[in-house]
Amino acid sequence: MADAVATAEKSFAAACDHARRTALLASVEALLGWDERTMMPAAAGGYRADQAAALAALVHRERTDPVQGERLAALAAGPLAQAGSPETQATIRLLRHDFAKQARLPARLVEELARACVEGQQAWARARADASWSMLEPWLRRIFSLKREQAACQLPDLDPYDSLMDDYEPGARWASVAEVFGRLREGIVPLVRRCVEARKRPDDALLRRDYPVEVQRRFVQEVAARIGFDFERGRLDTTDHPFCSTAGPDDCRITTRWDERFLPTALFGVMHEAGHGLYEQGLRRDWYGLPPGEAASLGVHESQSRLWENLVGRARDFWTWCFPRARAAFPATLADANADAMHEALLRVRPSCIRVEADEVTYNLHIMLRFDLERAVVQGELDVGDLPAAWNDRFEADFGIRPPNDAQGVLQDIHWSAGLIGYFPTYTLGNIFSAQLMRAALDRHPGIPGEMAAGRFDTLLGWLRTEVHAVGRTLESVPLVTRATGQTVSERWLLESLEERYGPAHGF
Amino acid sequence: MADAVATAEKSFAAACDHARRTALLASVEALLGWDERTMMPAAAGGYRADQAAALAALVHRERTDPVQGERLAALAAGPLAQAGSPETQATIRLLRHDFAKQARLPARLVEELARACVEGQQAWARARADASWSMLEPWLRRIFSLKREQAACQLPDLDPYDSLMDDYEPGARWASVAEVFGRLREGIVPLVRRCVEARKRPDDALLRRDYPVEVQRRFVQEVAARIGFDFERGRLDTTDHPFCSTAGPDDCRITTRWDERFLPTALFGVMHEAGHGLYEQGLRRDWYGLPPGEAASLGVHESQSRLWENLVGRARDFWTWCFPRARAAFPATLADANADAMHEALLRVRPSCIRVEADEVTYNLHIMLRFDLERAVVQGELDVGDLPAAWNDRFEADFGIRPPNDAQGVLQDIHWSAGLIGYFPTYTLGNIFSAQLMRAALDRHPGIPGEMAAGRFDTLLGWLRTEVHAVGRTLESVPLVTRATGQTVSERWLLESLEERYGPAHGF
Repeated sequence: MADAVATAEKSFAAACDHARRTALLASVEALLGWDERTMMPAAAGGYRADQAAALAALVHRERTDPVQGERLAALAAGPLAQAGSPETQATIRLLRHDFAKQARLPARLVEELARACVEGQQAWARARADASWSMLEPWLRRIFSLKREQAACQLPDLDPYDSLMDDYEPGARWASVAEVFGRLREGIVPLVRRCVEARKRPDDALLRRDYPVEVQRRFVQEVAARIGFDFERGRLDTTDHPFCSTAGPDDCRITTRWDERFLPTALFGVMHEAGHGLYEQGLRRDWYGLPPGEAASLGVHESQSRLWENLVGRARDFWTWCFPRARAAFPATLADANADAMHEALLRVRPSCIRVEADEVTYNLHIMLRFDLERAVVQGELDVGDLPAAWNDRFEADFGIRPPNDAQGVLQDIHWSAGLIGYFPTYTLGNIFSAQLMRAALDRHPGIPGEMAAGRFDTLLGWLRTEVHAVGRTLESVPLVTRATGQTVSERWLLESLEERYGPAHGF
Repeated sequence: MADAVATAEKSFAAACDHARRTALLASVEALLGWDERTMMPAAAGGYRADQAAALAALVHRERTDPVQGERLAALAAGPLAQAGSPETQATIRLLRHDFAKQARLPARLVEELARACVEGQQAWARARADASWSMLEPWLRRIFSLKREQAACQLPDLDPYDSLMDDYEPGARWASVAEVFGRLREGIVPLVRRCVEARKRPDDALLRRDYPVEVQRRFVQEVAARIGFDFERGRLDTTDHPFCSTAGPDDCRITTRWDERFLPTALFGVMHEAGHGLYEQGLRRDWYGLPPGEAASLGVHESQSRLWENLVGRARDFWTWCFPRARAAFPATLADANADAMHEALLRVRPSCIRVEADEVTYNLHIMLRFDLERAVVQGELDVGDLPAAWNDRFEADFGIRPPNDAQGVLQDIHWSAGLIGYFPTYTLGNIFSAQLMRAALDRHPGIPGEMAAGRFDTLLGWLRTEVHAVGRTLESVPLVTRATGQTVSERWLLESLEERYGPAHGF
């Protein structure tokens, strides 16, 4: 028996080495992706695609190495799967789950998908520029069909949509996500109506003044560092479509856009990405490249970004600290302003066609629309060709506006043409998790708002580090949030939070 | 026979594919190196070393793939090696040469060398900071010993030093390099003495005024673009030790340092690196990753950087165009200056301890010292432990100054601790080639100086594109320069050029 354990431990170490080596190559892939979107010269895109494809092939080969598969099968049947430390057990279980998913995908499908998604994104860029659905339709048809094939291969026991969601939100199932979204919708629709019909409307003119980019850069870096983003282990750069990317355990890179006539673009963009970055920087370094050192899910990831962006960044207490800083940075621009006016300006609700420009209240309606439509296509209930009409009808019903063209409608997001199907719900799950986590943090540490007003964020961050970051992927998102908050996952804290903040700003 | 040719052509295509795939991975390695020195967060170095080592191992595995070895051996014995196009013949010959060198190195040696050089560079940084030779000596001893082993393995028929030079300057042999260096030395030593003893000394105070970095950045980018560096296919960034790195056929990245009180640091630094960049951008795109699309040697590479830095950048005609630009960029700083004063300020000769700060005339004496010492160590004529004393004695004899400490002497360069032995002579070879090439360009196109004065550089660049860049590695450096100039390679044009420019500046 002692022998069996010793053998299993040796085999476990080998499995971890293998996974770490794969993570090493995947981190190089991430660096190439970051470079492509921030630094790469304009003409270098063609060769970069070749470099990325070559690395992707190497990573896929490592991920499906049969030796690792046998090792993991033996470990799953061996003593450590039951008697190892919680981290060891989770590592065996999740590496095996990931391996099985990858190994069930035919190499041909992986390659076809990779190519279809690169070409799909290029077609999308052209189609959106021309507001021409017909330019994208054939690509989307092919991508949805390949993704259905992927779904059926990788987790054949699940519904296709559930199988796809598993890539982004492990363990999530359509039925329960749809249920919680349904209840959230019942609360949001009337809230939007009340905001839109309110006689009091927050004036956001203050945000649309001169904010020189170089000053913004220093200002948002100060804010990011203050909430805890470690610039010794990360950096901030400029890009068109902001993201956070991790190229190693001490190398987390966040990005933003700048608008010299609208402060929130960069300020909340950076607080959002820094929220992702704080999660990445808070993962366990000793388990880097293995499930205990990985993020639990994209929903949990988004909960961290949205918490810092919205529940800290749009909180009145935060502006007690932040406003004097902002006025010092932009003395002429903010000479006649104060923290109250600034805070209120940030709470304007205004239904609009574009998701990434949506306010916090209407945002989730954008997500639910995509969630319902993509699921219907994957399940075979809606034809790809009917997406634009279905989009516009649903949008009109939800927002009272019909998109003037498909660029403002079904063509606005890159996700589907990049093969990211089953991904959208993680945005709203993130919002739900963020409000529930923030409520629990405030209940546990009532001093947090006062600290925020003094520009101190370590109690909040410390609580997130312990309850969320250090957990890694050893729990799925729902058990993780349940354990951290002591409450079943529910939309009610998000609704409460929205009503508490947006009601008064709109006079109710 | 037709069958044999068809088979050979198929095999040639496969060999080229293999080499291109290796180049693809090597280009990712280059990108990692660039990122490490320009962008990487401070704390990320440890993991970056792991990433680099993993990629290096992949590249080495590809480079020594036995299938490729057999393919190349068959090609070398087949019809294409004699009857293929010049590019095909050169490709077969050089891929085979490279493969044989790599394959003769035991994997153990490759790994030991890689580790010793990483550790050696770290030891060097500490040793230089402390000006402590004893902190570096054991590492250098190990590195020289491993390099001697490498030399004996890779090209066993050559002298060890010649074998090492082959990595940087294919075909170069110590005996002939030493001969040309000896003649160059005979001309430079009296020239330095005349400059130092001259009663007229150029006044360089003009260069040591306020040059705000942000303005410098725009100014040097304008200059680099004007001489032909294509920023659609490249970029400029900041680093401590400037370099030029290529991450793909359309992705050439140059770097510089900035000194707000000394314009030449960035201006000539960027003209130098842009010279390297022009060569990279001028290589044949259709042969990227294969010898006809590779640089001929480091000496030829350096000839391009030095030509633009010194023979263009320090030419009086160049300043006819450049001075008004400089005054527009730095109006207060240069209010009382003119093109003549600027040009003269750039020609000050002043012996000093540090190679990278040396003027153009004394520079080659720094190189010859290193060339002689490293060769003596490799050939077993000088013990590593005797390097500091040998350095200081030789330096005093050549420059009339004894370095005040080893940081200003034997510890100043990173090369030896990075395993770059046999590399130094390429700097002076580059200077020799640059003067000979410039002379030939001027003879062929007497309009070049007038164009330079008008800020036009396309005739000069076009000539270099045809005579140097497009040749790739199909010729070794000496035949390449001979063919381009119609003259045997000689130091005389470098001596002439130095005397023509530095004599008048020093009143003779």
